[in-house]
Amino acid sequence: MSMKANFRNDYSVLCHPQILKALEKYSSEVNEVYGLDRHSKRAKRYIREIFGLPKAKVFFVNGGTMANLLFISYVLKPYEAVIACKSGHINVHESGAIEGSGHKIITKEGFNGKLYPEDIKEVLDFHVDEHMVKPKLVYISNSTEIGSVYSAKELRDLYKFCKENGLYLYIDGARLGAALTSKNNDLKAMEIGEVCDAFSIGGAKNGLISGEALVIKDKDLASDFRYHIKNKGAMVSKGYFLGIQFAELFKNTLYFDLARNSNDMAYKLYKGLEELGVDMLPFESNQIFVRVENNKVDKLVEYFGVEVRAKGEERTILRFVTSFSTTLKDIDAVIKVFKDFN
Amino acid sequence: MSMKANFRNDYSVLCHPQILKALEKYSSEVNEVYGLDRHSKRAKRYIREIFGLPKAKVFFVNGGTMANLLFISYVLKPYEAVIACKSGHINVHESGAIEGSGHKIITKEGFNGKLYPEDIKEVLDFHVDEHMVKPKLVYISNSTEIGSVYSAKELRDLYKFCKENGLYLYIDGARLGAALTSKNNDLKAMEIGEVCDAFSIGGAKNGLISGEALVIKDKDLASDFRYHIKNKGAMVSKGYFLGIQFAELFKNTLYFDLARNSNDMAYKLYKGLEELGVDMLPFESNQIFVRVENNKVDKLVEYFGVEVRAKGEERTILRFVTSFSTTLKDIDAVIKVFKDFN
Amino acid sequence: MSMKANFRNDYSVLCHPQILKALEKYSSEVNEVYGLDRHSKRAKRYIREIFGLPKAKVFFVNGGTMANLLFISYVLKPYEAVIACKSGHINVHESGAIEGSGHKIITKEGFNGKLYPEDIKEVLDFHVDEHMVKPKLVYISNSTEIGSVYSAKELRDLYKFCKENGLYLYIDGARLGAALTSKNNDLKAMEIGEVCDAFSIGGAKNGLISGEALVIKDKDLASDFRYHIKNKGAMVSKGYFLGIQFAELFKNTLYFDLARNSNDMAYKLYKGLEELGVDMLPFESNQIFVRVENNKVDKLVEYFGVEVRAKGEERTILRFVTSFSTTLKDIDAVIKVFKDFN
Amino acid sequence: MSMKANFRNDYSVLCHPQILKALEKYSSEVNEVYGLDRHSKRAKRYIREIFGLPKAKVFFVNGGTMANLLFISYVLKPYEAVIACKSGHINVHESGAIEGSGHKIITKEGFNGKLYPEDIKEVLDFHVDEHMVKPKLVYISNSTEIGSVYSAKELRDLYKFCKENGLYLYIDGARLGAALTSKNNDLKAMEIGEVCDAFSIGGAKNGLISGEALVIKDKDLASDFRYHIKNKGAMVSKGYFLGIQFAELFKNTLYFDLARNSNDMAYKLYKGLEELGVDMLPFESNQIFVRVENNKVDKLVEYFGVEVRAKGEERTILRFVTSFSTTLKDIDAVIKVFKDFN
Repeated sequence: MSMKANFRNDYSVLCHPQILKALEKYSSEVNEVYGLDRHSKRAKRYIREIFGLPKAKVFFVNGGTMANLLFISYVLKPYEAVIACKSGHINVHESGAIEGSGHKIITKEGFNGKLYPEDIKEVLDFHVDEHMVKPKLVYISNSTEIGSVYSAKELRDLYKFCKENGLYLYIDGARLGAALTSKNNDLKAMEIGEVCDAFSIGGAKNGLISGEALVIKDKDLASDFRYHIKNKGAMVSKGYFLGIQFAELFKNTLYFDLARNSNDMAYKLYKGLEELGVDMLPFESNQIFVRVENNKVDKLVEYFGVEVRAKGEERTILRFVTSFSTTLKDIDAVIKVFKDFN
Repeated sequence: MSMKANFRNDYSVLCHPQILKALEKYSSEVNEVYGLDRHSKRAKRYIREIFGLPKAKVFFVNGGTMANLLFISYVLKPYEAVIACKSGHINVHESGAIEGSGHKIITKEGFNGKLYPEDIKEVLDFHVDEHMVKPKLVYISNSTEIGSVYSAKELRDLYKFCKENGLYLYIDGARLGAALTSKNNDLKAMEIGEVCDAFSIGGAKNGLISGEALVIKDKDLASDFRYHIKNKGAMVSKGYFLGIQFAELFKNTLYFDLARNSNDMAYKLYKGLEELGVDMLPFESNQIFVRVENNKVDKLVEYFGVEVRAKGEERTILRFVTSFSTTLKDIDAVIKVFKDFN
Repeated sequence: MSMKANFRNDYSVLCHPQILKALEKYSSEVNEVYGLDRHSKRAKRYIREIFGLPKAKVFFVNGGTMANLLFISYVLKPYEAVIACKSGHINVHESGAIEGSGHKIITKEGFNGKLYPEDIKEVLDFHVDEHMVKPKLVYISNSTEIGSVYSAKELRDLYKFCKENGLYLYIDGARLGAALTSKNNDLKAMEIGEVCDAFSIGGAKNGLISGEALVIKDKDLASDFRYHIKNKGAMVSKGYFLGIQFAELFKNTLYFDLARNSNDMAYKLYKGLEELGVDMLPFESNQIFVRVENNKVDKLVEYFGVEVRAKGEERTILRFVTSFSTTLKDIDAVIKVFKDFN
Repeated sequence: MSMKANFRNDYSVLCHPQILKALEKYSSEVNEVYGLDRHSKRAKRYIREIFGLPKAKVFFVNGGTMANLLFISYVLKPYEAVIACKSGHINVHESGAIEGSGHKIITKEGFNGKLYPEDIKEVLDFHVDEHMVKPKLVYISNSTEIGSVYSAKELRDLYKFCKENGLYLYIDGARLGAALTSKNNDLKAMEIGEVCDAFSIGGAKNGLISGEALVIKDKDLASDFRYHIKNKGAMVSKGYFLGIQFAELFKNTLYFDLARNSNDMAYKLYKGLEELGVDMLPFESNQIFVRVENNKVDKLVEYFGVEVRAKGEERTILRFVTSFSTTLKDIDAVIKVFKDFN
């Protein structure tokens, strides 16, 4: 493989050096197990502070599909359903994990990867009696599957609608860092509790080896959540492994710094390609969708590991993802290849 | 309620008199329980003969949702999914029963309530790896949710495509009688095994008190099916209750006679309304969709119990369903009301 | 088969003649579907009155396994478990239906088929944290699997313990009639709400064609129960079929009359055999366990269809079940055969 | 906390230094994701060689409960059940994860934490028809929950019985290293494929940060296993994190060296305490069960973090667990405390 730089995704590199350094520091320490250790406690404290949710319950688990599955299957009764964007991760890329836990996903097309109150209203208007599932939770991701970012107003409107209609709103934050540090974002981290009932904070896509934090605003709602984690096979025996990582991520500003690097690099790549006249979809976070002539695809895939997202007769859409480890050198490598095309 | 005649649906009346007579006849007989009785055996023999499937396994259960749930959850592994029409009964009107058994339903718009090989191909082309569910079974109903009927060629093409691609094809026959006796039908009952792996035969919508027969062509596939029925809470203790009914239905031509009555009455209603210039969707079996001015809706609902299917600014679509018990008098009552409108 | 009389079980005969008569009476009536009909409403009213629970919610379903499955899976969260007797129907004879809905059954030996507060306390003492399931519901049956009957005090003590410990108490009443009309019973039907949160009333084992009533005391708890019924594939389209039957059973005293016949016949059989010196387990309701020499087993099975419950080197335990349709002539037939043995 | 040495369990310390070193080495490398990387491939090759299973399929997942859940729910149909020891991890300490996936666990008392063909035979003899679950898989752990170790003959006999009766045999190897390096063990690693259909290899309890290898002997059986992993929320995005660790563990003899250290330290502790006349259960691997007077319990818990396993009127059973990181100094600390007691 003659890869020049990695733009395949934001989880191809193990972790940021600081994370590994923290693990080394505590590597021979005896710790409480199953997440009851002091590092996990520290990390949870940081998260509660940063997101302005002093009473929230925080849980660390391995993997984003698991975080989604855990929260959704915890709050829903068997006949209750999730509403999600048709392109939503839970609908397309989780191999039926939500349905596997017994729940229907009702999909709406949405717009630009996002759901709006009108979408939810249509679902509620259609589901009128017990011969259909009962919609009970709205699932969104921020940033979305296609890298778009909700505005604070969009989130507030959506959450208001949910609360008026007895629905939970859950934000899949596998790339929450990319959303919160996006130029398009105007929601403060401190305000996230005002726009949802629960959210996840992705670690693996932002510099950690693994780990997602699941934050549930209402601690009473979460009272039995550790039972549920165990029941789904997701309780981590060496929970301090996650605790150490998340403490490192949130004790200072590392989480935001890394996400900002992803977005900055993406912005530079976008601008660089724009100057070259490359055809791209609107830019919002760390995913850039580039439309190129089909004869350029093989090279770009070979050089940068990018994913093919849509094939046309003449042109193809490729996805470039930047990450915590993307450098200016990587960006230059892409620019150079595109220049050589001309 | 001042109902003039019932067109609400085909299961508002307990049963055809002959069914009750059969039940009386055997009402004090001591029978084997759990479906191992002589009547169930008789009934299964009739069904195997009539549908030309001497080696098929036949099971009687209560209710169509249960029949669908049982077969689908029996043949699928947890990560495998069903493909169905967006309007399909399992997708809309079973309150998440299929997902409740752990399986995703992948939906396609289809055409006129039916699925075609192109629809399935699109699903297969999209689901390429283990990050998505594995499509494994195609669910159709015949007649469909909107009363349309598959042609023999449509069914053969669909089944051929399924077999070439390792998919099961299951026909929800809640209204199979209406399909097989439709003027649009050209599939013989004897040929049904040539176009699917399994199908249900609805009793409750065609003159029985309750009961669906589930026919599984490959008896080896069905070897543990009784375990599965019990596991889902669907084993009927007095199985002979279903056996006696189905034996009565299939020992002669009652099943087809009753379905034909439904279709004939629907045809007469259709023709009668057509003469009056009433706006209707194309007619295929025992469901007639009538488009009327909004000011007529309340009366029609009151007089005939019909369901409102779609409300517009000026006009509304109502569904008239005929059944085994619909009579010419009932038809005349509708015609008269429409005449009075003019 | 040269059966002389049926003692195999209490559901080998279709139904009591009065039930069939009621069905005939309403057989051509147009009814609301899915259990919203006037007969179901009537029947629910009778049940609420007879059991002294004016605010309870009543649901009619097909089959006892389904009734158990529905209530248990409705009130439990995924990590919550049922406590049951090791011999309990849900543990042994439901093919994993409860586990199939996701819930562990924690078993205790109990005594004489019954559970006591000490049994439950042992379970609670053992299950201390989230690495184990959370016990949340106690399942008992009355009469029990082996025909024993709880005293009012036993039930009150058990329920008191459950309430003090945040547990639901559910009574599987597949043979509740036999319990309430047992000579050993001292609980009034009117008092059942004082000793449990929910209970079922078996119809199929007491003269109905099919049907179990599920009574949930707290109507708020039951608010979404119809969704749940549909989700499990158990919604009956012609719900009036169950409504008509239960209305007939409870509009006067038929339910108790039939159960009393079962118990009376059992008593007569017990007394008759006792006089002959036959070895039997203590008698409490409509199941009699008889210990006979092995060389008599084949004949008794052939003549009376009785079940073999335990085989020993020299002797075997057989179960004789009486029912609504057992007559004195049937009893005499058994007595005669035993006499002939001597 | 004034802990003198850790004997709480074998997963209180992050990992062996060599593991962290390996992670550092590859920490900035770009890798394939979802377990398709070169390290995972290397690790799988080592495992296949060491366990003599050139055609087996190997999967790496986070956590032992997940490994058990994944295999069991993959091979069983909804009505099929697992047979396990009453003390088995899946029965007691997985919060209903197996039942959560829909399957009953049939328990037998077993002997010394182990199951024998007679136990399985009793289960098969009891489960005779479709009114009960169908036993299909035998779950054992080696070493067991109480630290006992199967002999090669015991395993061969059990597997032979399973194969003769159409049952899968699965070995939970959360502590397989401790078993294979136990003085009581006479099964070679190379022979494990001769005594089971699948097994797990615990990493977290033997020096890894996290990770269990699941080895499925028959690659055809495993063909869709990656779908199943994803469906259960257990697919690891940075799979190379597990790959690097397992490669390090198995590229030389580290896995066995660490396990041997656990056993050796346990042996030394056992011998040391024996000399002091301390009352202990028979010793087999890295868990030692010590019976002490109740007045000593608090100190031992405080000093060594040991678990209380059974409380009596006068004496209590405590569990001492040794691990990859236990040193002679730790052993001496325990001995000293016991000496001071005298």
